This record gives sequence, structure tokens and C-alpha cells, in this order.
Amino acid sequence: MAGMTYGSLLDGDSRYMGYALREAERALECGEVPVGCVIVHDGQIVGKAHNQRETLQDPTAHAEILAITQAAAHFRSWRLEGAKLYVTLEPCPMCAGAIILARIAEVHFGAFDPKAGVCGSLMNLLEDPRFNHRPRVCPGLLAGECGDILTRFFRRIREGAGIPKPRASCDDI
Amino acid sequence: MAGMTYGSLLDGDSRYMGYALREAERALECGEVPVGCVIVHDGQIVGKAHNQRETLQDPTAHAEILAITQAAAHFRSWRLEGAKLYVTLEPCPMCAGAIILARIAEVHFGAFDPKAGVCGSLMNLLEDPRFNHRPRVCPGLLAGECGDILTRFFRRIREGAGIPKPRASCDDI
Repeated sequence: MAGMTYGSLLDGDSRYMGYALREAERALECGEVPVGCVIVHDGQIVGKAHNQRETLQDPTAHAEILAITQAAAHFRSWRLEGAKLYVTLEPCPMCAGAIILARIAEVHFGAFDPKAGVCGSLMNLLEDPRFNHRPRVCPGLLAGECGDILTRFFRRIREGAGIPKPRASCDDI
Repeated sequence: MAGMTYGSLLDGDSRYMGYALREAERALECGEVPVGCVIVHDGQIVGKAHNQRETLQDPTAHAEILAITQAAAHFRSWRLEGAKLYVTLEPCPMCAGAIILARIAEVHFGAFDPKAGVCGSLMNLLEDPRFNHRPRVCPGLLAGECGDILTRFFRRIREGAGIPKPRASCDDI
């Protein structure tokens, strides 16, 4: 994807994942683990966020949680029926749980997370018939690009190059 | 517990669960599913919240998530190591996930939730050795009282008496 403008040459689901990747890039610039998320309803982006755990010093500030809260504010409703969520990394239990509670219709994720992912890696919460809602799950969309940005982040840490200190706010990026 | 003042005659863990029950009562008064939560660190309450899903129209506004975010703000840190969480209902996947991410040391819950609880009912996320943190889990504290308030709420709905319309803010209760 080097040199490619996300959203310009891609269609449909890949285009939305491209926007999620842009959000992940913003997280990287803020010194956050680079994960991005967008939520789409009827072709309109109604939620868009990146991981802000360090910036906000809030353990719940994952990209998906922030995007879901934004989308709910957009609709003035906690029910996000019909919405599609695009996230660059396989959701963790917290985010998978929020996706179920919000009744999101469809989840596209990029890279698998073998350490904490619960949408196919450690387990599959989103397809567990015991919960009262089951979104459609589409794994592996732009998985290479979504994994690459994480690899870059963790390589930088391993090489001791450090990471940018999180700012009080990343909103200006 | 009728007529009893929570916190006056109880010691330690039960006293903190009493405060969580007070929060659940506030949720009930707001027309919310009555679940309350407090977070304690070194004997000090650092987070206290009740379910506000309807009031805020936010699917992530469970008592535990709100209390965790409060506690993180108190410490200006997403790491809540050493903290104890008291919640009147067994956590769902979203809240159990947030508890793991926040590295909370100990979780006390009251009533089991056979439909969505993942701390013993449907599964046990908090004791899954594959996650990088495992809190101590203590189920069933003041289970009768914690279950009773939920029973009252759902009986009221079944009997058609309706529930109070959620207000824009419950902060004045």
C-alpha cells in the first residue's frame, strides 16, 4: 500500500478499512498502539476513532469503544442496528462485548491478534449463540497493511528508538 | 436488607457492596436496569457509578465501565493495579474485558447473570490463563439483595406499571 491514498483506489469495505488505517496512523503519531476503527451506516461514516489509551490514560479508550460511543451520540441511540464496524485489529473481549451490546450488524477486522483477539484467535465471542446478538464477522480485510503498522510500532520499541510521548490531545493531527 | 442502612452495620467487602447497591438504587430511580459498581483502592472509593445506558443512550455506559473510567481519572493512569471492584451483577464480556485491561486485582460481584455473565455463568473470562492479567474473583456477595433489586425492576415492567422515563441526567439523585 506504500504511496497509495487510502480511499482513492479501493471500493466498498476496503475503502472503509482504509479510513480505519488512517486512524491507526494517527494513533502511531500519538505514540499509541496503532489501531483504528470506523463505523458506517447507510454508506455514511458515523464513528471514527483511534486507540487513545495512553493519551487519555483510560483503559477503556480502545478505538472501537470510542467509535461506538461516537456513533451512538450521532444517532442519539445505543442501538446501532444495521451499522458496520471496520477495525484494523481483531477485537479484544471488551470491544467484542461492546459490539454485541450495540447490536452492530457486521464486523470487518484486519490483522488477527493471537494474544487477546476473541473473534477467531483465542475464542469467538461474536459468534457465540448464547448471546442475544450475533454480528456477521469478516476477518482479514487488508490484513497485511493492518499488521504492518503494528509491526512498525513494536519494532521501533524493540530497537529502543522509543515512541513519541503521548500528547494531552491528539485531536489536532 | 429492608430498613437497613448500607454501610452502617456491615464490614469490609459487604460494606463496599452496600455502596454498589446504593448505586443500583439510583439506576432504578432513573429507569435504568439497576446495576451499581464501586472501585476501592487502599480503603478509598475511587470510582462509583450506576448503569446509564438509557440516560446516555450509550451502549458502553455500564456501571463498571463508568466506574473504571472514573478510577483511571482519579489516578491519572489506566493501570488500576491493587484496586478492588464491587458490582451488583456478574460482569458481561465488555466489562470483564475492561477489568482485565485495567489490571484490577479483585472482583466481587453479587447476583449471577445466566444470560450474559462471563465470570462463571456462560464462561469465565476473568480466570482464563491466556489473557495477560487474571483478577481474583469472588462471586455471590450480598447476592440476595443484588438480585432482588433486579427482580423488582423486571417485575414492574412485566406488570405493565412501566418504568420511569430516563432523565437527561441522573446526577442530582
